[in-house]
Amino acid sequence: MPKLDLDTIPQTNATGYPPEFAGPVQGRWYRRLAPASGICDFGFSHVTLKPGAASAQRHWHEGEDECVVMLAGEAVLIDDSGETPMRPGDVAAFPKGDGNGHMLVNRSDADCVFVAVGGPGNGACHYPDIDMHLPAGGGFVRKDGSGF
Amino acid sequence: MPKLDLDTIPQTNATGYPPEFAGPVQGRWYRRLAPASGICDFGFSHVTLKPGAASAQRHWHEGEDECVVMLAGEAVLIDDSGETPMRPGDVAAFPKGDGNGHMLVNRSDADCVFVAVGGPGNGACHYPDIDMHLPAGGGFVRKDGSGF
Repeated sequence: MPKLDLDTIPQTNATGYPPEFAGPVQGRWYRRLAPASGICDFGFSHVTLKPGAASAQRHWHEGEDECVVMLAGEAVLIDDSGETPMRPGDVAAFPKGDGNGHMLVNRSDADCVFVAVGGPGNGACHYPDIDMHLPAGGGFVRKDGSGF
Repeated sequence: MPKLDLDTIPQTNATGYPPEFAGPVQGRWYRRLAPASGICDFGFSHVTLKPGAASAQRHWHEGEDECVVMLAGEAVLIDDSGETPMRPGDVAAFPKGDGNGHMLVNRSDADCVFVAVGGPGNGACHYPDIDMHLPAGGGFVRKDGSGF
């Protein structure tokens, strides 16, 4: 059955972020839909942000295109151009290598829900606001390359 | 600005289908969002189906994963397992090579809207219900390989 039964797909708020940067994503609950559905050309996740939660630390990828499709609630998209409200039906795209760190934050008092799509992950990820870096093929380090 | 201004992105109902099979998609109006946003890892389109329109002829890809995220209205997903209603917030996935032809049809009296995502296209596309085939790297032909 191609239609996904979302309730049967495991939901997690796990993160690989070091503890000092993990707080904003504790309220990010997501289901990884690609492994659940047999898709491998791209990744896609069904994400619920609890009030106050962020989709990620603000970041941009060297080697992975991303987009989000808003389904419910309201989020604020934060990037170098400022803050932009995102409401159901809105779509945003984040081309790899654009150097424009982005994140979604739920500042409302209700959950917001979106689907996020990402290309096959490769290349480094940059975090302009915090002392964290994700090198290609590696784990999180500080910007001077030292470990957490 | 990562948020896409959908109204500024060209909308078309163009199709490469031969005329005899193009009728069902005449009411399929879509915006290609990847070229409009600088995304190249995957394709994604914002699609409106007018009442009576179909997303495509029922098909499956040998080499392209696909998914759809419903945003508004209601469609019927038709595949080998039968018919399944798709409503806002619903997600369906179509793994490449699964041999399960799929299509969405709008049987309601209002527009329906969804975002469709597809991996980098390659490989043939199969149409179980009609005398049409799309070979890898080629244009539409009949199942015996003859042209339209």
